Amino acid sequence: MQERQRVYIQEVSVRDGFQIEAKFVPTEQKIELINALSRTGLAKIEVTSFTSPKAIPNLADAEAVMSQIDRMPGVVYAALVPNVRGCERALACNVDEINLFMSASRTHNLANIRMTPEQSLEQFQKVADFTGDKAMLNASVSTAFGCPFEGEVPADRVMDLIQRYVDMGIQGVSLCDTTGVANPTQVRELCERVRKRWPSLLLTLHFHDTRAMGLPNVMAALSAGVDRFDASLGGLGGCPYAPGASGNVCTEDMVHMLEAMGYDTGVALEPLLDIARLLPEIVGHEVPGQVMKAGPYTRRYPVPESVKGM
Amino acid sequence: MQERQRVYIQEVSVRDGFQIEAKFVPTEQKIELINALSRTGLAKIEVTSFTSPKAIPNLADAEAVMSQIDRMPGVVYAALVPNVRGCERALACNVDEINLFMSASRTHNLANIRMTPEQSLEQFQKVADFTGDKAMLNASVSTAFGCPFEGEVPADRVMDLIQRYVDMGIQGVSLCDTTGVANPTQVRELCERVRKRWPSLLLTLHFHDTRAMGLPNVMAALSAGVDRFDASLGGLGGCPYAPGASGNVCTEDMVHMLEAMGYDTGVALEPLLDIARLLPEIVGHEVPGQVMKAGPYTRRYPVPESVKGM
Repeated sequence: MQERQRVYIQEVSVRDGFQIEAKFVPTEQKIELINALSRTGLAKIEVTSFTSPKAIPNLADAEAVMSQIDRMPGVVYAALVPNVRGCERALACNVDEINLFMSASRTHNLANIRMTPEQSLEQFQKVADFTGDKAMLNASVSTAFGCPFEGEVPADRVMDLIQRYVDMGIQGVSLCDTTGVANPTQVRELCERVRKRWPSLLLTLHFHDTRAMGLPNVMAALSAGVDRFDASLGGLGGCPYAPGASGNVCTEDMVHMLEAMGYDTGVALEPLLDIARLLPEIVGHEVPGQVMKAGPYTRRYPVPESVKGM
Repeated sequence: MQERQRVYIQEVSVRDGFQIEAKFVPTEQKIELINALSRTGLAKIEVTSFTSPKAIPNLADAEAVMSQIDRMPGVVYAALVPNVRGCERALACNVDEINLFMSASRTHNLANIRMTPEQSLEQFQKVADFTGDKAMLNASVSTAFGCPFEGEVPADRVMDLIQRYVDMGIQGVSLCDTTGVANPTQVRELCERVRKRWPSLLLTLHFHDTRAMGLPNVMAALSAGVDRFDASLGGLGGCPYAPGASGNVCTEDMVHMLEAMGYDTGVALEPLLDIARLLPEIVGHEVPGQVMKAGPYTRRYPVPESVKGM
C-alpha cells in the first residue's frame, strides 16, 4: 500500500476567529475548546495574541489561556506577537512558537498596525534577537496575494520579504490571503517559486474563503508541494471588507476533503466535527462550515420505505 | 500572448434551483431572468423540465417559459425530460437539447423516479429514437460519484452506462455529484478515464458544494481536460439530504475563479453578479453565493483617512 502524503493542519480559530467576534468568549471556555482541539491530532494551534488588551479586548486573557491549557506532546502552541513586549509576555507563558505579522502592502500595514513595512521589519529583527532559541519563529505576511487598497501585490515583494525573514533566522513563513483575493493559478506560481528558492523553509499557506476560492487554493498549493495550512474551526474569522461572506478556510471541511483525497492529516474528523458543532452556541451565531451540517461524504441514509421490495 | 483556454458554463438555476424552492417563481419572472442570463455569455441554459406538473409544480409552466423566452444565437436552450411524452412536449417548444436523467445507483433511481436503471435505459432508448436529429441529446447520470443510500458507486458502473448512451447515439453526458460526496482525487480519476475512452464525447461535470468540494472538484476536472460545467446562479439548488448546507456550485463564483485563473468562460462577470443579486428577492431567502456579497477580487477600498499622510 502506498504511503499517504502528510499534510499539517494548523488551527487558528481561537485567535484569528475569536478576535473579531462581537462577544467575548469566556477564558474557561477558550481553554476547554483548545484542550479538546489538542486531542484531535492538529499539528499546531495558534492559541492567542499577546497584543494590547485595548486593541483586541477579546484576547485580553492571553496569559491565562496560554498558561492554563493542557499541552499535548506533538502539538505546537503558537501565539501572535506584535513587538518585543508581546514576545516577552508570550515567552513568560512558555509558547512553542512566536508568530510575527506584517502586510506585504504598505497601505494595509499602515491601516492595520500603523507601521511602515520598514518599521515592521525592524520590529521583527528586535523580536528575533530577543527570542533567540527560546521559541520557534514564524513570520506571517498579510495581503501576500493582493491588497484591498492597493490591488495587486507583486510576487517579487513577497519574495524579498521572505529573504529578509530568512536572513533574520526566522524558520517559518505564512503567506496569508487576508481578504480572499488569491486565485489558484497565482497561488501555485508563488508557492512554486518559494519552494524552489527555500526548499527547507517551513511554509504555511493561510487562505480565506471570502470568494469561494479557499479550498481551490489549498489544492493549488498542494500541487506546488506545500504541506502546511492554517484553518479555522467552523470557518470562523473573516474580513471586515466582505460582510456576509465566509471567513477563514474551515478546518473540518479541509480535513474532510484532504482525507477523502487520500492525504494523511493526522486529524480525527469525527471528534473535530463534534467540537465544531459547539461553535454556534459559543459564538452566538451560525458558522460557515459545511460538513458539520451535511455530515461527511461517508454518511448513509436509510433506504426509503417506498423503495423496499421494488 | 497565449490564448486563454475556453471553459463552457451551463446554467441550471432556473430548473435545478427553482424546482426545490418553497415558492413558485412566476412565469414572467422566470422568462425575464432567463433572458437576462442569455445575454451574459453562458454557453447553455437548462430552461425547465417537461415532467408532470404534479411531480414538480414549480415547473408546471414549462411550455410557457420555453416558448416565450428570447433565444440568443450561440446559447443552447436545454430541457430536462423524463420520458417520450416529455420529449414530445419539449420538441413542440423547439428545444435545442433534450436532457435525460437517471441515477447510477439502483436505490437512488428507484427512490427518485421509481424505475430500475434497466427501465431508465429503456426510456432513454425510446426518447433517443423519438428525437432522432430533431434535437441534441444529453444523458445526466445522478449519484455518479456516490449514493446516499448505497455509498460507493463503482466507476465501472458509470463507464458501462456511458457506453450504453454512446451506443444509443447520445452526444453528451453529464456526470452529476447529486449529494456532494465527490472528492477531487476521485473526480480526476473518473474524468481521465472517460476522456481517454471517449475523447469526442461532450462531457459535462455537475457538482454540488454540499461539503465545500464544489470548486475543488471543478479544478480536478479541469486538470483532466474537462471544459464543460453546470452551475447555478447564486448557488441555488441543493440536496434534500443536507439541510443547511450549500447547493449547486455557484455560477458567478465559478466564473469569477476561472477568469481570475486565466480561463476564458465567455461570461461577463459584472452583469452576471447584477442578476445574482436579484435572487434573494425572487426566491425569498439568502443564497450561498460569495462573490455577490464580497465583490470580485479586483474590488478596491478607499484608503482609510487615518493612513493618509503617514
